[in-house]
Amino acid sequence: MNIVIYNEGIHDKEEWMKNVYPQGIHGALSDILASPENSITVITLDNVGDITPELLARTDVMLWWGHAAHHLVPDSVSNTVTEAVQKGMGFVALHSAHMSKPLRQLLGTSCTLKWRDNDAERVWVTAPSHPIAAGLPEYFELPDEEMYGEYFDIPKPDDVVFMGWFNGGELFRSGVTFTRGLGKIFYFQPGHEAFPTYMNPNIRLIIKNAVKWAAPSKRLERLECPMSPAPGPVLK
Amino acid sequence: MNIVIYNEGIHDKEEWMKNVYPQGIHGALSDILASPENSITVITLDNVGDITPELLARTDVMLWWGHAAHHLVPDSVSNTVTEAVQKGMGFVALHSAHMSKPLRQLLGTSCTLKWRDNDAERVWVTAPSHPIAAGLPEYFELPDEEMYGEYFDIPKPDDVVFMGWFNGGELFRSGVTFTRGLGKIFYFQPGHEAFPTYMNPNIRLIIKNAVKWAAPSKRLERLECPMSPAPGPVLK
Amino acid sequence: MNIVIYNEGIHDKEEWMKNVYPQGIHGALSDILASPENSITVITLDNVGDITPELLARTDVMLWWGHAAHHLVPDSVSNTVTEAVQKGMGFVALHSAHMSKPLRQLLGTSCTLKWRDNDAERVWVTAPSHPIAAGLPEYFELPDEEMYGEYFDIPKPDDVVFMGWFNGGELFRSGVTFTRGLGKIFYFQPGHEAFPTYMNPNIRLIIKNAVKWAAPSKRLERLECPMSPAPGPVLK
Amino acid sequence: MNIVIYNEGIHDKEEWMKNVYPQGIHGALSDILASPENSITVITLDNVGDITPELLARTDVMLWWGHAAHHLVPDSVSNTVTEAVQKGMGFVALHSAHMSKPLRQLLGTSCTLKWRDNDAERVWVTAPSHPIAAGLPEYFELPDEEMYGEYFDIPKPDDVVFMGWFNGGELFRSGVTFTRGLGKIFYFQPGHEAFPTYMNPNIRLIIKNAVKWAAPSKRLERLECPMSPAPGPVLK
Repeated sequence: MNIVIYNEGIHDKEEWMKNVYPQGIHGALSDILASPENSITVITLDNVGDITPELLARTDVMLWWGHAAHHLVPDSVSNTVTEAVQKGMGFVALHSAHMSKPLRQLLGTSCTLKWRDNDAERVWVTAPSHPIAAGLPEYFELPDEEMYGEYFDIPKPDDVVFMGWFNGGELFRSGVTFTRGLGKIFYFQPGHEAFPTYMNPNIRLIIKNAVKWAAPSKRLERLECPMSPAPGPVLK
Repeated sequence: MNIVIYNEGIHDKEEWMKNVYPQGIHGALSDILASPENSITVITLDNVGDITPELLARTDVMLWWGHAAHHLVPDSVSNTVTEAVQKGMGFVALHSAHMSKPLRQLLGTSCTLKWRDNDAERVWVTAPSHPIAAGLPEYFELPDEEMYGEYFDIPKPDDVVFMGWFNGGELFRSGVTFTRGLGKIFYFQPGHEAFPTYMNPNIRLIIKNAVKWAAPSKRLERLECPMSPAPGPVLK
Repeated sequence: MNIVIYNEGIHDKEEWMKNVYPQGIHGALSDILASPENSITVITLDNVGDITPELLARTDVMLWWGHAAHHLVPDSVSNTVTEAVQKGMGFVALHSAHMSKPLRQLLGTSCTLKWRDNDAERVWVTAPSHPIAAGLPEYFELPDEEMYGEYFDIPKPDDVVFMGWFNGGELFRSGVTFTRGLGKIFYFQPGHEAFPTYMNPNIRLIIKNAVKWAAPSKRLERLECPMSPAPGPVLK
Repeated sequence: MNIVIYNEGIHDKEEWMKNVYPQGIHGALSDILASPENSITVITLDNVGDITPELLARTDVMLWWGHAAHHLVPDSVSNTVTEAVQKGMGFVALHSAHMSKPLRQLLGTSCTLKWRDNDAERVWVTAPSHPIAAGLPEYFELPDEEMYGEYFDIPKPDDVVFMGWFNGGELFRSGVTFTRGLGKIFYFQPGHEAFPTYMNPNIRLIIKNAVKWAAPSKRLERLECPMSPAPGPVLK
């Protein structure tokens, strides 16, 4: 599988983050997906222009982590990602990527939510037969995670695979799927930069499952409005 | 109810169309919705800049008909419409508005489809208890309509209220609803400029029902990410 | 509006419950819906046979509260309710009615869930533009309520209008809608017999909104497989 | 994979049908699914009592074809199938199985539709990235098939994978998916006993895809309401 991991890579350059993710968030994500079958390309804001239609045409699934620099991603890159998804590429948006340009462009909503700093979260499985939930227990816990709470302004998801409960009194649709064109989309809330969430075995399993699930079953070369191929009634 | 009708108004200036819609498509739509309770504002491409956040903040439902000049609608206008819908304004997209900037921005798909010129259509009700289908027969016919056929690249609709059957061998999800933020959206396929579709009594009833259905039940002044208001567990 | 309130009425005969609902749960529900426009019929297990096809054919919305005596409701009564919903009657299932015969028959799932005695609940609005959420704050609290938790074995709802957060660490899809045939269904979790939940102003508003929302827009006299009325292509 | 094919087997005993399906409909279905990986059990009305909880507990996917003898299937068998699906078994309901006891019990609607004898059908793919549509063209044709038409009284499907267009002027949601508990359900309309529909290569591919898709990812041993396992807030 050809995988592209985009991490804006801003926090990753700060000293304090070395203790959480010595190789950066992209390093942690790469480590989760490393296998002989996977070819992984890492892109950060520094070389965001490498996200081209040609690259994405041969990419099966793209992961996107962004937070502080959504506005620095060019609109043209967001258009490129959106169109690649519509043609079939899978897209896994992580944590504060709820406000990223491509996800908002694909969903058509504001993607706003409530938030608060450090809390603890219990993640519940709410679609136990969904492939992304395969192998997970009924629930698991994250002792430190940023609180994201409802109302979360997203379109009605295809499936709500996970819901998060927070000590502070909020809840959230934490793992949600969408389809846009031929592309499968998964948004997953846990993954704050200040905590080693991507080291948690359950989180790692979810990321693996999600990438596998989002792989395209069919792809288009072009999006277009063709003339109709159905020439009248069915002949006997 | 405050209603804004946007019709690009290009075809309406051509001589041949005077026979179909002497007052233009916007005139026909205004006529459908005229009532003492409704205040109607008509906007065409000539004054598309009149579509401002202030106007839409006091608009309950906007109708959009466009075909030849989607690209001449400024992105800023499309952003204004999209944000107004997310805050609660209803949006009724008609016929070739499937390719309009605001609808594509709200849906996040290419909205491509198959098409062919003049055919006849039978429109079937496929959600008989939906408010937009109130008062309609099981099906009705349009002797002349442009064929729009599947695959129609839209996200999974909230409801498929109507499906269209065409003599030539195609079918289509002709009337579909979506929610984006607090705003209700209805896309409706019949309404080609060359035929007097908006004079058909069933079509007129559907437009009336749709505008009534899309009226906001709640509106936001701003789209934003607030801090959480839930201060810990529930106190007894 | 013609409303039928079914309450099995078992707990209501016990001494301790007089302090919570002196007029029984059916009395509290009747009080919420009392108005000159509404005609209310109360039925309990003692006269459950009064639930006939004739009664339900002229009933707009039926409310159902049951807990200890689901198995004492005859299958024939459950069939009658199910068929009336399919023909258009609204159905509001309350609290432990998640295990009632008619709701399970309409949904086709086991409707099992996790539960625990007395806890506190915070109810969040997760579909702010839904008519059942009209007039409600972002969230409200119930200091005493029975805990119902995920995984809740229901089909994918049309809308998840409310979600519940519990002090003890669970969450729940507390208010969910479904459509079966022409009938609208709302299941709502709060309403344990040991606490005066139906005296809470927010709960009362939700019940009122739900009954209004579930009222039929169209009704069938019979459910049947007719021959097709569409005699060939559309004639011009 | 362990597969059970139920075919009531009434028409299959009549002389005229020998020309269409010499081995019966169950024979044709078995032939489609025959492979070293699959173990296939055929059951007809003659031994319908062989459908036991024990058999279905080790069955991955069950196919169901029935028409003339829905009423002769005991309620207890329908309960057994329904509960097996809720626990995770896949269920593929074919053609006139829309009126079968298990499907109606799982869906909770009347499953009525319009119908007419022999017509021609064009089947359109309306969810091109769905696994059940893998390898299929945009549309294909069946020169002889029974017409099933809208309004089809089913709950909102998870996905509408196929829609059927009929020469006579009707259309139909021909291939639809549902989830009930952990079980995946696919209903597929083509398959009238009078025509060799199950010999059509596209139909055969769809049946294969559907069985593969419906295979369980997780199974339950019991359906029950357990006490909650979440002991209070998340500990740090």
